Amino acid sequence: MINASCGSSIGRRFRVVTFGESHGAEVGCVIEGVPSRLKFDMDFIQNEVNRRRPVSKIASTARREKDKVKVLSGVFEGLTTGSPIALVVENEESNSKDYEDIKDIYRPGHADFTYDAKYNIRDYRGGGRASGRETVARVMAGAVAKLILRSLYPKLFIKAYTVNVGGIESKAVDFSEIEKNDLRAADKEASVLMLEKVKKAKEEGESIGGIVECIIRGCPRGVGDPVFNKLDALLSFAAVSIGSVKGVEFGAGFNGAINLLGSANNDSLYMDGGEGGEDKVKFTTNNSGGVLGGISTGEDIVFRVAVKATPSIYKEQRSVKKIDASKEVGSKEKEARYMDTTFRIKGRHDVCLCPRVVPVVEAMSAIVLADLLL
Amino acid sequence: MINASCGSSIGRRFRVVTFGESHGAEVGCVIEGVPSRLKFDMDFIQNEVNRRRPVSKIASTARREKDKVKVLSGVFEGLTTGSPIALVVENEESNSKDYEDIKDIYRPGHADFTYDAKYNIRDYRGGGRASGRETVARVMAGAVAKLILRSLYPKLFIKAYTVNVGGIESKAVDFSEIEKNDLRAADKEASVLMLEKVKKAKEEGESIGGIVECIIRGCPRGVGDPVFNKLDALLSFAAVSIGSVKGVEFGAGFNGAINLLGSANNDSLYMDGGEGGEDKVKFTTNNSGGVLGGISTGEDIVFRVAVKATPSIYKEQRSVKKIDASKEVGSKEKEARYMDTTFRIKGRHDVCLCPRVVPVVEAMSAIVLADLLL
Amino acid sequence: MINASCGSSIGRRFRVVTFGESHGAEVGCVIEGVPSRLKFDMDFIQNEVNRRRPVSKIASTARREKDKVKVLSGVFEGLTTGSPIALVVENEESNSKDYEDIKDIYRPGHADFTYDAKYNIRDYRGGGRASGRETVARVMAGAVAKLILRSLYPKLFIKAYTVNVGGIESKAVDFSEIEKNDLRAADKEASVLMLEKVKKAKEEGESIGGIVECIIRGCPRGVGDPVFNKLDALLSFAAVSIGSVKGVEFGAGFNGAINLLGSANNDSLYMDGGEGGEDKVKFTTNNSGGVLGGISTGEDIVFRVAVKATPSIYKEQRSVKKIDASKEVGSKEKEARYMDTTFRIKGRHDVCLCPRVVPVVEAMSAIVLADLLL
Amino acid sequence: MINASCGSSIGRRFRVVTFGESHGAEVGCVIEGVPSRLKFDMDFIQNEVNRRRPVSKIASTARREKDKVKVLSGVFEGLTTGSPIALVVENEESNSKDYEDIKDIYRPGHADFTYDAKYNIRDYRGGGRASGRETVARVMAGAVAKLILRSLYPKLFIKAYTVNVGGIESKAVDFSEIEKNDLRAADKEASVLMLEKVKKAKEEGESIGGIVECIIRGCPRGVGDPVFNKLDALLSFAAVSIGSVKGVEFGAGFNGAINLLGSANNDSLYMDGGEGGEDKVKFTTNNSGGVLGGISTGEDIVFRVAVKATPSIYKEQRSVKKIDASKEVGSKEKEARYMDTTFRIKGRHDVCLCPRVVPVVEAMSAIVLADLLL
Repeated sequence: MINASCGSSIGRRFRVVTFGESHGAEVGCVIEGVPSRLKFDMDFIQNEVNRRRPVSKIASTARREKDKVKVLSGVFEGLTTGSPIALVVENEESNSKDYEDIKDIYRPGHADFTYDAKYNIRDYRGGGRASGRETVARVMAGAVAKLILRSLYPKLFIKAYTVNVGGIESKAVDFSEIEKNDLRAADKEASVLMLEKVKKAKEEGESIGGIVECIIRGCPRGVGDPVFNKLDALLSFAAVSIGSVKGVEFGAGFNGAINLLGSANNDSLYMDGGEGGEDKVKFTTNNSGGVLGGISTGEDIVFRVAVKATPSIYKEQRSVKKIDASKEVGSKEKEARYMDTTFRIKGRHDVCLCPRVVPVVEAMSAIVLADLLL
Repeated sequence: MINASCGSSIGRRFRVVTFGESHGAEVGCVIEGVPSRLKFDMDFIQNEVNRRRPVSKIASTARREKDKVKVLSGVFEGLTTGSPIALVVENEESNSKDYEDIKDIYRPGHADFTYDAKYNIRDYRGGGRASGRETVARVMAGAVAKLILRSLYPKLFIKAYTVNVGGIESKAVDFSEIEKNDLRAADKEASVLMLEKVKKAKEEGESIGGIVECIIRGCPRGVGDPVFNKLDALLSFAAVSIGSVKGVEFGAGFNGAINLLGSANNDSLYMDGGEGGEDKVKFTTNNSGGVLGGISTGEDIVFRVAVKATPSIYKEQRSVKKIDASKEVGSKEKEARYMDTTFRIKGRHDVCLCPRVVPVVEAMSAIVLADLLL
Repeated sequence: MINASCGSSIGRRFRVVTFGESHGAEVGCVIEGVPSRLKFDMDFIQNEVNRRRPVSKIASTARREKDKVKVLSGVFEGLTTGSPIALVVENEESNSKDYEDIKDIYRPGHADFTYDAKYNIRDYRGGGRASGRETVARVMAGAVAKLILRSLYPKLFIKAYTVNVGGIESKAVDFSEIEKNDLRAADKEASVLMLEKVKKAKEEGESIGGIVECIIRGCPRGVGDPVFNKLDALLSFAAVSIGSVKGVEFGAGFNGAINLLGSANNDSLYMDGGEGGEDKVKFTTNNSGGVLGGISTGEDIVFRVAVKATPSIYKEQRSVKKIDASKEVGSKEKEARYMDTTFRIKGRHDVCLCPRVVPVVEAMSAIVLADLLL
Repeated sequence: MINASCGSSIGRRFRVVTFGESHGAEVGCVIEGVPSRLKFDMDFIQNEVNRRRPVSKIASTARREKDKVKVLSGVFEGLTTGSPIALVVENEESNSKDYEDIKDIYRPGHADFTYDAKYNIRDYRGGGRASGRETVARVMAGAVAKLILRSLYPKLFIKAYTVNVGGIESKAVDFSEIEKNDLRAADKEASVLMLEKVKKAKEEGESIGGIVECIIRGCPRGVGDPVFNKLDALLSFAAVSIGSVKGVEFGAGFNGAINLLGSANNDSLYMDGGEGGEDKVKFTTNNSGGVLGGISTGEDIVFRVAVKATPSIYKEQRSVKKIDASKEVGSKEKEARYMDTTFRIKGRHDVCLCPRVVPVVEAMSAIVLADLLL
């Protein structure tokens, strides 16, 4: 039955289901598998959710919600109980009028058409379930995952940052820069050039894409379940599930595949300090991106995701309009008719999604790791 | 418990579990969810398995097995019964002597080190479970998936082919060329240049990587389960789970993310022939690669995977050797010691994996689609 | 990791996760897999939840909540959208003072001790997650399952009723009686005798158990997935997961196993009206309870569950008290100490759980069937 | 799609899929989640499989297979590798001629009719997938589960035995008797009386049922995942999934539900030896059967299953015959016609299944526990 869907849950041991639409009552998640007696650090969780909100007046012009996280269950006297943890935020600012004009028009690059094709119904208010608003739930769940990882592996950390916008590539990785610039780039100089690209796009009523990189440092060796549930396969799944992400690559990635012969691409092993225990085994390079045979090597896990230009732009666009939307429940015939149209998107939208994808990539990585490490 | 693994199964409705090592007794799969009364076309299945075997004397020099598929269950009088279908092939040519010299050495670029880190035991014969031999099971399951798809959606087909080897890019896509050249390229002219690159690498004792593209044509609209189980996320998971694949991208992919502004990247919708039903709705371009919001648009689903250079090369390589491998069952302390070493790989190996990845990418795509379409 | 838990979700196609504790903020569920464009009949859902509340002043003396169902997501303009549906009720009357006296005492027959053994933390307020309050979420999810079943199979219905309390057996099954008497028995005469038993138990500060039967009528033939996911196995799982249920049997059940030889126990098939199509195939008896080989026969599916006497009684009871409850997060040593004690339970409790188990058995049956029939 | 089935797999961390029909090539299982470096004790596994074969010339007259267990994967140099373990036995004695006479007749009490209703195809040879032969795979997987449990919890053991045949109840539980008598009763005296019942049934061409009890001793406290995946719910699922099992009850079970008031049914806690640590906490009785709130108490886990009389009897039986079995693949109309008939079953069959259910109940219990304890 193609019009039903069980795709909003992820994980086997650390299991998350998310719910909520852009202009519904609440957006939230239910998390199973959280060990008991974990200190439930609400400040940390709220802070992660705050990081997800717009950072830049230039790149991001989207709505501003309070996004106050509310705990419905699973926490008692500040500690987790081992029972499911339900977290929600309310949708306060839900001005659905912006969307009435286009309720029968399929915005190009958006999921309007495909949702309607699948479900034969469309919650047109702000993209409904396909809205970026859905990522609040990912970030809440990711924050809980980070709490678990922090307690199990204090040295493990996950950092994502923008490495390319509009063709401007970062040359450096300085974690301390990330939260200082509007695009969450880890390279100060590059960030200035990137922002120029964003400004220009904005002035033209355009949008712009880029690449976000993620480093997972301190992950123990031996994580990942071959043959299918490989660490890189699971991270790819998690990353590509994020809206606007159109690709993922590990280590040397696509360039390595084309440009590096075997002897250059293979990461040699060596003993750091001569003969010794397993902790002395190191790799001379990290073209693998920290994963071999789907299992972590102990080196940094490094992957990049391609973020397409925001589909919402202010230029006039060509599309198709549904002109007879009446459909009966259970009717098998799709009798709706469609016609050509042109239209303009109103409302406020991010010009470049990269800085907002950053915390979501981190959250998804944390969810995958918590699932594998529990 | 990090030394246990449930990663060899995939799918929810069309469920596959694979088993078998490079030099074990048999490699096989058990498939659940196959509808009953499906004509079980053994010739087709055997043919798919045959396609997986080496095609090229230049690119592929790996062992040649008969790979005769044996059906253990789930088929009665030529029809499926709805019960699990177990398929196996024997490992005939299992010359494990090639591997005894390197049984304590971790081959760079291989999973030797990570398997040992995870499981504290290593079946060194031909890579054990991490061998490319494991893909026979994927191809058998993929063949059954194709049989199902063929019966449900006769117009749907899946084609993979090599589009880049060593930087040589294909300019054309001609399906009829794929099986005619050694690299399974869909562009005759490019294939000649690619093969030159492979020959040169071979002469140098090197290996070489490339890019494989896959097109799924005729997939109905509305396939894919948001939010996490998006069609592109599931295909990414499936693709990156294939050995040697280090990245995946859809449609315009990484280049699109960097180079296309919103107005250029958005695929406009239009009516093919003016006002009409849903079947007349088309897209002017396909930068999305046939997936929006994780759901199929009805256009070709197009993705590319990065295939790294084969890790097995004939040059001398630097690595690490385990010198005290004795480990007691259940012992928590890892007392093994390691030392630097150099070594050469013996035996026969593929110089370029692309032509052999082609049928595996198709198989994995078929598995994902059968799972979503049942 | 024994102190983590992923047990609050059920189902594969119709997937439900529940959350919430007796005295937490809210109790709720998230439901995935609901087809789109289903009329979301809130009156029906609220009515099912109302049925779960105490029916009898004699049998049930538990707290009375408004239990107003709130829809957080997945419904748009009165129709389901195919996205996850989150439903919650608030906990209004949460007088946790009744429980402070016994916060370190393990109530016999309750899950206090086992939760503490597992999670090393105990939400003592009203049983926390182990409270019967958790069943509100089951009933909400079951109501949605019934909506789906009603739309797919209008003739299918599920009826549960009390057939034994304190040894008084029902002789008749009259569905119209169920909601007319305090114990939800389907036999008017027996219900009077049962209620006498309950009154007597109440006067003595005791509690009393019984048996609840469930009939699923109109289920199509061929439902259930052998070998493990048999229809009766799934219903057993669902039924025994209900608090206080200690057994389940189908058709002739335990008595049949002991008393019926093969020829008597086998349900003969015959043609209703002579030679004809499959719809004319009938069974002379229904000792199988409507399930053979784990698949529905088309006859009534009939099962009974054993409901133990409510563990909360007003008599003085002997138990054990924790006297040093300080435990550090992550500490492996359990240093708590315990001593003998006697105590009395305060507050309001059901004398006989049978009438309140009735709607929960129906809900769980509906959840299992929706999962199999989607 | 009702004619597909994913029911042959069980477990989340210790995952088993089984395959094979009564008269197919092989019966087997693939097991995921087995920790690496476990000594793979083939003698133990073979011995468990041998225990499954007929024990009694009176009770069991079924076919005798060698059932030599063959390991296809996952074991290297006598140790598990962490990769999937595939185990198979061949079907040697597969005389399908006994079944040709009844290939269009639905044997009462068997799954012939329901399989045909579900799958629209029937492997009539010996019951096909619904045959008791399928339990070889359960026993092989259960044996591996026992190996894991033995290494993790050396004090844990699982014992099943017959406690009732034809109304003759056991009065004693003496484990040393179980393998000494033909019915695997744990009470020597009762076993003699039970066997009389079996003999009488056999002489009459009848079959007879009974009750099998299972004790799990030494299970740690805190095992089981509320709310749905309760230990008793999972054991019920596993037990009722066994062919011929029609019910399950824990501890005081159905009798307790009817006959025990709250104060009698509640198991009081006390300190064994006065104030002390958690290990001193004991229960005065075990009416709960070792499970409270779905979590193990540390007492014996005790449950009983109802085993119906073998459906295969030698008396003439009434049933229905399919007279036009031609069905096209994919055709939605079921055009087959049916008529009344009488027939006799040929071949060899168990008169009483209890002694053969015993090792299967143990195997299923081990599978459930391994899944929860890994």
